[in-house]
Formats: sequence, C-alpha cells, structure tokens
Amino acid sequence: MSDITGLQLLSTLAQDGRLTVSLAPQTLPAPTGHEVVLRVEAAPINPSDLGLLLGSADVENAEYGDGYLVAQMPAAAVRAMVSRMNMPLPVGNEGAGTVIAAGDAPEAKALLGKRVTCVPGGMYAQYRMVDARACMVLPDGATAEQGASAFVNPMTALGFVETMRAEGHKALVHTAAASNLGQMLVKICREDDVPLVNVVRSPGQVALLRQIGASHVVDSSAEDFADALAAALADTGATIVFDAIGGGTLVSRILAAMEQVASAGASYSRYGSATLKQAYIYGALDLSPTILSRSFGFSWGVAGWLLTPFLAKAGAATVERMRARVRDGLTTTFASHYKGRISLRDALSRNVVLAYNARRTGEKYLILPN
Amino acid sequence: MSDITGLQLLSTLAQDGRLTVSLAPQTLPAPTGHEVVLRVEAAPINPSDLGLLLGSADVENAEYGDGYLVAQMPAAAVRAMVSRMNMPLPVGNEGAGTVIAAGDAPEAKALLGKRVTCVPGGMYAQYRMVDARACMVLPDGATAEQGASAFVNPMTALGFVETMRAEGHKALVHTAAASNLGQMLVKICREDDVPLVNVVRSPGQVALLRQIGASHVVDSSAEDFADALAAALADTGATIVFDAIGGGTLVSRILAAMEQVASAGASYSRYGSATLKQAYIYGALDLSPTILSRSFGFSWGVAGWLLTPFLAKAGAATVERMRARVRDGLTTTFASHYKGRISLRDALSRNVVLAYNARRTGEKYLILPN
Repeated sequence: MSDITGLQLLSTLAQDGRLTVSLAPQTLPAPTGHEVVLRVEAAPINPSDLGLLLGSADVENAEYGDGYLVAQMPAAAVRAMVSRMNMPLPVGNEGAGTVIAAGDAPEAKALLGKRVTCVPGGMYAQYRMVDARACMVLPDGATAEQGASAFVNPMTALGFVETMRAEGHKALVHTAAASNLGQMLVKICREDDVPLVNVVRSPGQVALLRQIGASHVVDSSAEDFADALAAALADTGATIVFDAIGGGTLVSRILAAMEQVASAGASYSRYGSATLKQAYIYGALDLSPTILSRSFGFSWGVAGWLLTPFLAKAGAATVERMRARVRDGLTTTFASHYKGRISLRDALSRNVVLAYNARRTGEKYLILPN
Repeated sequence: MSDITGLQLLSTLAQDGRLTVSLAPQTLPAPTGHEVVLRVEAAPINPSDLGLLLGSADVENAEYGDGYLVAQMPAAAVRAMVSRMNMPLPVGNEGAGTVIAAGDAPEAKALLGKRVTCVPGGMYAQYRMVDARACMVLPDGATAEQGASAFVNPMTALGFVETMRAEGHKALVHTAAASNLGQMLVKICREDDVPLVNVVRSPGQVALLRQIGASHVVDSSAEDFADALAAALADTGATIVFDAIGGGTLVSRILAAMEQVASAGASYSRYGSATLKQAYIYGALDLSPTILSRSFGFSWGVAGWLLTPFLAKAGAATVERMRARVRDGLTTTFASHYKGRISLRDALSRNVVLAYNARRTGEKYLILPN
C-alpha cells in the first residue's frame, strides 16, 4: 500500500525560550514486519502529557495563530530542558484507534481492521506507526473513547496498590483523589479490600467520591482537616501516600499526621516513632516547591514515583496480570470521564488551551484527531 | 558493695511547655548478673543529644539557677512531644568511664577496673549502670576523652559508606562536612578509595578539610558554588548525599546538580534522567523546613537516616566488622576534637548552654562529670 499522510502535533523549544506548538503534516511509509499504522481516534490529555506539550510556558500571554501557538518558557525551565532544544517533539502518550495497515508479521496482520489501544507516545496525530506487539485489542463493541485511557491511569492506580503491598504497608492515602485516576483507585481498593484515605480539595469532591462508594474522604479545605485526617489514618493504618500535587505543605502535613497516629501511646523517642512513613510524589499539579517540616521523626521517605520504572521493576508477570485486569474492567472499574472532546486544531486555540492546561481535578480533555 | 550515689542530669517537659533541665542525685544499687557500674569520665554533647536535652526550647531567654535551667518550648514542639510529658529523662547517648563495680557474671567481672566506652543513654551522670556485654574495652593507654565518642560519629560515618554500597552508588556527598563526623568520613573514604564530595559553609572549612587530605571540597557560601558542585559531582559520579543540615534548599540544590550531571548529553525526557538520586537527612542543624524544588525529574528520593535502625538492618556481622574498625582506629581515623570541656554544672550555665547549643560545625563540647 502507498504512503499515508496526516497531521501531527509537535512541540519545539527554541534557544531563546520560545515554545512553538504546531500542526505539521507527517507522511508514514508502508509498515513492515511488526509495524502497524493506526488511524488515531481518541487520545487523552493527561497531566503527564502537559509537561512535554507546554511545560510551564506562559500560555496566558502566548501568540495564537491558525494551527500554532508561541509561548515564552521561564528561564529556569529552559535551563532544565537543554536536551530538547530545537527538537520538534511529538506528544500524546496514549490513545486508541483502528489498524489500517500492517507489516508482514502474523502479529501485525492479525490486527488489521481491529480497534486497539496503546501507549507509544506521539498519539496527538491523525496516524501513528506502532509495534503490533505493544497493542491491546479492545473488547468487541468498545469505543475508541472507552479505550483511549487504558494505560496511564489504570496501570498507575494498580501500581499504587502493588507498591503499597510490595513495601509492606496495609492501607494507603491518595491526594487529588477526585481525579479520573482517583476514582479508579477507589474502585480498585474496594474490590481488593484495601483501606484507602482520599484527600480532596472541596466539598463537591467529597460528595463525588462518597457517591462512588469511598469510605474515607477528607477535605483539605475544611477547618477540621487535621483532625479528620488523623482519624482516617488511625482508622485505616495507612502509612504510605501517593501524591499528585507535589508543591506546598500537603505531603508534610500527611506525614506529620501519620507520625501523630504512630506515636500515640508509644513511649517518647527523640527520633520519632519507628514506623516508616512513605510519600511518593507522582504528579506536579502544583509546580511550587515541596515544603517538608520534618515534624515526623527520622523514619520517613519522600520520593518520585513514575509508571515506567515501576513496571520495569515489577516484572513481566505482574504487568501482564495488571493489563488483563484493565482489559476486563475497561468500561467499569477503569472507565474514564471527559470534560470535553476537541480536535487537533482546537488543542491550539486559546480558550481550549487555558481550559485543559488548568489541570483541574476531574476535568480531563480528549483529543479526537480525525 | 554498698549503693553508689552521684549526680545525674535530667530533662523534664511540663504540660505548659516549660522545660526544666536539672541536676539530681541518683542512687545505684549494687550491680547483679551482667550489670556493671561505670564512673563516667567523659561524655560528648552530640547534636543527637541536644534534641532530648533542650529541643527547640528558648535557651536565650531561659531562667538559669544553680544546677538548673527553665526554658519555654514552642507550642508546636510541645504537641510533638506529648509522650515525654512530665517524665524526667536522663540524657547523653555515649561516653567512656571506668568500671568500679560488677555483677557476678564472668563478662561483668572481667571488666572490673577497666576503662570502657558504651552507648547506653543517660551518660550525663557521675555514675551509670550498664550491661557489660554492650561495653567496648578501650585499648591500653587510651584516655576516657579518646574513647568517649567511639560510637555515634564513627558508626554513623561508616554507616554512610555501607549504605552507599548497599544501594549501588559509587561515590557520595556529605554536607556540614567539616564536623568531627565529616573529618572521620574524609579519612574513611581515603582508606577505602571511595570518592567523596565535601560540602562546607566557609573558606576556613575548605582549608581544614584540604589539610586532612580531602580531594573535593565545595563551599556553599562561594559565588561559584553551583558550578563547583556540578564539576565535583561529574568528577566523582556521586548520586547519594548524606545531609546533616535538614532545613533550607541545600538538599534540593544538590539533587538538581546531580540531575544536571546525569542528563548531560542524554536525550531529552520530560521525566528527567533515569539515574536515581538519593538524599538522606541524618541531622537537623537547621530546624526550618526542607524545601525541594523538584527540578530533578522523578527518579529521586529524600529520606530520614538514623543509626539505630541502620545497624538493626545491617546485621550483627556487619556491625561487628564496623566496631572492630573503630577500635583499631580510635586515636587515628576516629579521633574526635573538642572545643571545650565542661562539668555537669557548667552544662546548665547560660554562656556554656548558648555555646554548645549553637551547634557550630566542628565545635563539639565534652562533659567530664567527675
């Protein structure tokens, strides 16, 4: 078959800190071997995509044109991004689409005409060449929208529970817990009988999570937050937290509350309790610094948590078990909800950019490239 | 033999936040079994003792009397110390002295008249009952002063190198590196051929460490600190730091410099380099919050590090190997230096309290209780 041409979205950072995001035509050669060509039908904008797409560029005051935007990146961010300088980078971790061309390998040919989901990067495009072996075929009747977010959020939520178990904790805390990912985690923990403390930032989010069956939901905007959090931690025995926010004092306050629970009734030690309190920061909804008061003894850890290294460490058997569970629960446990559906061109218009870049909990956008 | 009476130092926190430190007579019964009674001859004031002795109490404005002081503890600190409320706590982790009475067990009797070092707590006292099996006999001719600090600093410095190796790093960074502990670490790393980056806070400290043979010394007060640090990290390949300071931005700046080195020449990843950068906070010379900019990707960890849990995890064989090395190097590699020698009564006088509580690097005080 002949070459296929379509639009793709590219993000390019220039030496002077000007970030250009634009639509550009891309021509795909005929696939060979295990390659297949996808007609991309739906790709979500996850917080993890925004770092590459826009970073901390000033989109408020950017220049918006037909099919492009140019925004200034802060000097500090530019210094941290030296290695992407002047490289047009495709964006979009994951998505779903239909296989319209395939290489000669049987695994590739078997996918022709099938709707699949995958996480190859560069999915903000009309067409994408991917490896057939990295694709998951969607269940019969599943829409591209249902399959678009089958990887990042579901595997991350499952990864939290796996990490909790592997490190010997028996309950966990999650922040920004009203997110799509947070809602999945509520369902997973209910299915697995794992106690979960959900930390959210408004009464509306409390109601939302209670509605889907969450037992422990605490609102960090409430006056009694500290007491409610300590009570939930005492109730569940949670000593590990997964934090999507990153900046500010929340992680520190949660560790301090864990320490308060751990040392209640114990004899005094100047070094704090012997209970290990662990925080994993997996997101950066707040880009400001993490402030740790260290009012929680010496038995604590705070670390970055990222899906890819976690999966590499977990091993093939664990990953396959996790993927099978996602496949089985695609339209139930792992269903995603979207605030809006946009085209590739919409993704570069001011109002839409400001909306999806606000990273509001539970307001995820979906790109429909075709 | 009859009972022995001597003075001991006690620290008591009252409900209203008033901290009283005072001298009180203590009567020790005749030792039995494995017990021995030490006449304490020298006990250092380590930063780890100050937390229990004074914490963050306002010693500047305290009331000082003959053999006591009363200082106000900040409300936040009082809340964190509920479990020590109204309990008179003995202080002083480690020290050296001569065995003047022993129980019937052969291990105890064998120590009679010997000068030993140990880490039982409560060593700010004229006499102390300890377990003979936890004592280390000092080499012939060694003074109590030479043996007083044979545990906390030497085992901590050795513990850093053990931790570095166990976690797969090949070089390390140490902050407040001009301390007694830091000087031991310089000698250990030279003996073991482990590359070490020393971070200090003044040109005088640079000179001091160079004098004892340190190769990499960077001064955080110098204008070129960031560049000098990055160069030293590139030179050594250090990806783990042990930090005595705790508060402020230093840990964050060191992790960022490690990331800068790790990602130099690598292809861009929005998640940062895959190199794990680890910081352990083992002290609190600065009690203010730890500020993490998170400008170092997602492959990082910051955690508390404490000697006792480390030794428990390391296992008996490792601990015995470490102790033997300390014994062999007591007057060379592991020699301590003191700014001043004080009596138990001096330890409660205003000028002396302000001096030792200033926690100035390299200005350690030694209590001579008899």
